[in-house]
Amino acid sequence: MLSIVMLGTGNVARHLFNVLSLKKNLHVKQVYGRSLASLEPFKDVVSATTSLNQLLPADIYLIAVSDGVINSVSAEIKHIDGLVAHTSGNTGLSALKTKRKGVFYPLQTFTKNKNIDFSNIPICIEAENQVDYLLLEKLGTSISSTVHRISTEQRQKLHLNAVLVNNFTNHLFHWANELCEASDISFELLYPLISETADKLKHLSPFEAQTGPARRHDVATMQNHLEQLENPLQKKIYQLMSESIKSLYEKKL
Amino acid sequence: MLSIVMLGTGNVARHLFNVLSLKKNLHVKQVYGRSLASLEPFKDVVSATTSLNQLLPADIYLIAVSDGVINSVSAEIKHIDGLVAHTSGNTGLSALKTKRKGVFYPLQTFTKNKNIDFSNIPICIEAENQVDYLLLEKLGTSISSTVHRISTEQRQKLHLNAVLVNNFTNHLFHWANELCEASDISFELLYPLISETADKLKHLSPFEAQTGPARRHDVATMQNHLEQLENPLQKKIYQLMSESIKSLYEKKL
Repeated sequence: MLSIVMLGTGNVARHLFNVLSLKKNLHVKQVYGRSLASLEPFKDVVSATTSLNQLLPADIYLIAVSDGVINSVSAEIKHIDGLVAHTSGNTGLSALKTKRKGVFYPLQTFTKNKNIDFSNIPICIEAENQVDYLLLEKLGTSISSTVHRISTEQRQKLHLNAVLVNNFTNHLFHWANELCEASDISFELLYPLISETADKLKHLSPFEAQTGPARRHDVATMQNHLEQLENPLQKKIYQLMSESIKSLYEKKL
Repeated sequence: MLSIVMLGTGNVARHLFNVLSLKKNLHVKQVYGRSLASLEPFKDVVSATTSLNQLLPADIYLIAVSDGVINSVSAEIKHIDGLVAHTSGNTGLSALKTKRKGVFYPLQTFTKNKNIDFSNIPICIEAENQVDYLLLEKLGTSISSTVHRISTEQRQKLHLNAVLVNNFTNHLFHWANELCEASDISFELLYPLISETADKLKHLSPFEAQTGPARRHDVATMQNHLEQLENPLQKKIYQLMSESIKSLYEKKL
């Protein structure tokens, strides 16, 4: 039985708490939050504290707080005996000030009010020695089928990639949603296309899967699209994305 | 039984030919292509011609050619009696020079060597009169469960949206793929995130689903990402996309 203390109460902390609490070989003993209000969702189901001096003994302390405060939170628990692992994609192992340091980064987007199936989420782990690696692997494999040892540098690259394929992609979906609303078209008409765009990757590389006016140098269509866009920032992004696609396929011709 | 002549031999023409040929209530009588070479994939299974003067009589002529030549191809068959419909997202009904004009636009991305399930693809149709609308509806509902009457203006907006949610999104996937390769990380690690990004839309609007450093004004992370990007065009797009996300959530605060 692995015992865990969760530090943090945001989206990642909540999703992790929910999935870890369900596992019979794990025991989430305690949750730390900065304020009583932040502990509200936890306090009836687990021991909760607002004091870093009152953490219970545990095998693993998971720090799921904003990147900017990982350093200071870990400095306050630097004498603790258990393995302390943060859950950030973009923060080095060295940000931790504790005796034993680790990373436990689930590569997924976590949103309030949307449950996540952890079973196929890649868990990227990092540690300083074999004992701690094995501990994080034990934790990871109890919730997911894919656990990978990933260096800080690789993890930061993955995090950048996650921004590209999730954050930016989702923002493009938002534009489309707004444009649909303005033209009285149901955004749902685009769902099959959006699904296919993701699904295609199982069969084709994104290089092969590329279609559209920029790839085929269809200047008239791109011009028409630019005229439909009113927001100057969107126009600029449309131009640069098209230029990037165009130059990629020119290079490879 | 509806009889169809297909004009064009590219991706859209091939995918449409394949699905229409399977339906018992439809009869694809002939395919027209500019050259004998382009007709190679068709010539053993259907009557094929390189001459627009030798088209067979049919209920519907589907023009699935490049946007730029819809006008000239239709001008060459302007005396034909059947309904002539193009399959373009971005071309007006008026580009057709025939007696009867229509649009039959399947809202999907078509790639060579990747089969498509048409059954849930939105088919956007446009015609000039009720008789022709019903004919296109009959054709559409024989391959898909969703057929919509969509004006030229709405269709052009949908086509722009398709570029955003498919072409640009896929290009972001390509960047991620390249960055993964350069760092010796498997691109497949990102598949669950990519699927979830698409899947989330069934539960949350893209406005609600947005996460990431730009939304939470995490300047340090964005700076770190910019340093990881080497291509100046990618840096610029990263900056503008982040700015666009940032300003959206500032506005709505």
